[in-house]
Amino acid sequence: MAIQIGQKLNSKEAFELAIFEARKGLGFVAPNPPVGCVILDKEDRLLAVGHHQKFGGAHAEVNAVQSVKDPEKLKGAKVFVTLEPCSHFGKTPPCADLLCGLPVSEVHFGVKDPNPKVSGRGLEKIQSAGIQIVSAPESVQEELQNLIRVFWVNQTEQRCFVALKVASTLDAQMALPNGESQWITGTEARTQGHILRAHYGSILTTAKSVLRDNSSLNARVEPFNEKEIPVFVLDPEGSLASTLKNLNLSKVRRPESLFVITTGAQASRFEGVMASEQICKMETPQGQFSLKEVLQWVWDRGGASVMVEAGPNLISQFVSAKTFDQLELFLAPQIFGVASEMSWSQSLGLTKMSQALKFQKVSYQPLGQDLWISATHRSNFSQ
Amino acid sequence: MAIQIGQKLNSKEAFELAIFEARKGLGFVAPNPPVGCVILDKEDRLLAVGHHQKFGGAHAEVNAVQSVKDPEKLKGAKVFVTLEPCSHFGKTPPCADLLCGLPVSEVHFGVKDPNPKVSGRGLEKIQSAGIQIVSAPESVQEELQNLIRVFWVNQTEQRCFVALKVASTLDAQMALPNGESQWITGTEARTQGHILRAHYGSILTTAKSVLRDNSSLNARVEPFNEKEIPVFVLDPEGSLASTLKNLNLSKVRRPESLFVITTGAQASRFEGVMASEQICKMETPQGQFSLKEVLQWVWDRGGASVMVEAGPNLISQFVSAKTFDQLELFLAPQIFGVASEMSWSQSLGLTKMSQALKFQKVSYQPLGQDLWISATHRSNFSQ
Repeated sequence: MAIQIGQKLNSKEAFELAIFEARKGLGFVAPNPPVGCVILDKEDRLLAVGHHQKFGGAHAEVNAVQSVKDPEKLKGAKVFVTLEPCSHFGKTPPCADLLCGLPVSEVHFGVKDPNPKVSGRGLEKIQSAGIQIVSAPESVQEELQNLIRVFWVNQTEQRCFVALKVASTLDAQMALPNGESQWITGTEARTQGHILRAHYGSILTTAKSVLRDNSSLNARVEPFNEKEIPVFVLDPEGSLASTLKNLNLSKVRRPESLFVITTGAQASRFEGVMASEQICKMETPQGQFSLKEVLQWVWDRGGASVMVEAGPNLISQFVSAKTFDQLELFLAPQIFGVASEMSWSQSLGLTKMSQALKFQKVSYQPLGQDLWISATHRSNFSQ
Repeated sequence: MAIQIGQKLNSKEAFELAIFEARKGLGFVAPNPPVGCVILDKEDRLLAVGHHQKFGGAHAEVNAVQSVKDPEKLKGAKVFVTLEPCSHFGKTPPCADLLCGLPVSEVHFGVKDPNPKVSGRGLEKIQSAGIQIVSAPESVQEELQNLIRVFWVNQTEQRCFVALKVASTLDAQMALPNGESQWITGTEARTQGHILRAHYGSILTTAKSVLRDNSSLNARVEPFNEKEIPVFVLDPEGSLASTLKNLNLSKVRRPESLFVITTGAQASRFEGVMASEQICKMETPQGQFSLKEVLQWVWDRGGASVMVEAGPNLISQFVSAKTFDQLELFLAPQIFGVASEMSWSQSLGLTKMSQALKFQKVSYQPLGQDLWISATHRSNFSQ
């Protein structure tokens, strides 16, 4: 964004800039949400920006306020923050207290804290200090909510946020009938896939996918090259045990960032290969793991969000169970011809249009010859 | 486009404006191509625009030149035209002759006339009159070629241009398993579908589709409300004969704009219902009509281009035969779950990635919640 200090901004522009700032924290702040802050002086000129840069580090408001060299300029200033300022002592002191002590006239906030225990408290504190509270304009609400979608699900449903990554032809094929799939999409789309690995912060895959592609499942793109991304592998047959140490998966991450979910019968094959706390034993009563149990195990291991990267079998299992929050679909302008087993969905037996899985907050972005569609699904975890 | 007379333009901008002008003729000029013309004065300021407005009417160059009130201004002017000026007497005198008689200094052209018999002749004529010939910049070549894609196929291959219209879910479904499909896409996408009916100028459909939806298959959108769009109906079983007169299809067009393709055995059912020249008798040796024979019949009846609007059965038949030039895909952000018979493609039995049907000149345009993907396929008509 080509915006400079001193430039006059309206409320919508200030929030757009704050969102842009917030996004810089994606991949670094989890399980905290990304937050951005913008300060305009009393004449609506841009004074400072800040974002939450790293988990455990200073919050966006602190970074923005500290970058103002001349405190005089904060008199009558307006603070724009994408998420309600915190009111409690966590790893840092409450931002609401910081703002209360400033001579600013208004605090504009994006979304209230989703945690029902603290929601609204930060704003009350600020208001009682004589600072006017203003909510963000309607035109940026969707983007503001989208920004904290993972944190929202974590806080309100106490569960892991689930994204499905699909690279497909226009006719919904993830591979040729013989399984070949490298590469359906071009380099730009695949690079965005690496960025999403970093943003979502952990990967769920299958032993079959790992053995076929020998993928590292890391994010080979700046600034995420050094980021270690935990991987959870579904391996009901224990087929990974014998080769695990030689796979690229193991070469690019420490043993504590690699998890296997296998059956009680096969778990012994991983003895001596992995530490016991890296192994989840789970049964497959209907021939497959319960996705909810798998996701609970991921959540218990600190997975705030997980991106499912696997073949059509696991992806369509998630689609059929409606157990996902976001679809990250990379569409390549080509046709393979529909073969049921290589499609990323399977028959859902719908009888009415109203039963279709519908998406909200759909964004479209061309990437080279391909198209990236990111869309939010109202999941049925609560059912 | 917010460009005003007197504004200074560079070559790329002049061509973009000429393309914009040309597109105003879409739906009115077939079987002629849409053509636009822009004239800049000797100081590169916009002097005039013009486009071919109607089949049989003045060409773009004529309209642009005639709109210049002061002929003095044409001294040293530059003419930009999307297609090589014609050099022969057709319904109007040759545009090359018109340009040769003007005091202009340069003629910039988009694409050479695809007709090998006349290609380059207009340019030679202009050059021999002492006017400099300049080809369009690389950056607008794709759009210039796209503009005359129908005319190009008509001229170089002497056949009808074929577009497939598909309204589908993200997982390539055109309907629920029970056949329900109204409506997958929203109003904006459906309006664009009506515009495409007018642009392509004729429709190919099936009796099954007509009977299910009782669609008018006209273009209910300005400026095409009054346009009569010929429809060709594949009806191997003659099932349309008894109800044809009561269908919306018949109500919105004259009998001479409605054609039926049926078998010799069923043709008699249409006696007294349609004039014999509206009926095509064709056999179905493999249980279905030969698409090439059907398209030849459409071409022989003046169909420069046809848009196929039908269910997954006919659409996937066209895909499998690779007998199409353009895909007009309207994607709705929802999932039905893949059921083979409702997908718009069927297994193509591919064994290598290189065998996939690939698209060029892919454009993406959000329409409401939906996405319109228009993409060119290198068809295999010549094989």
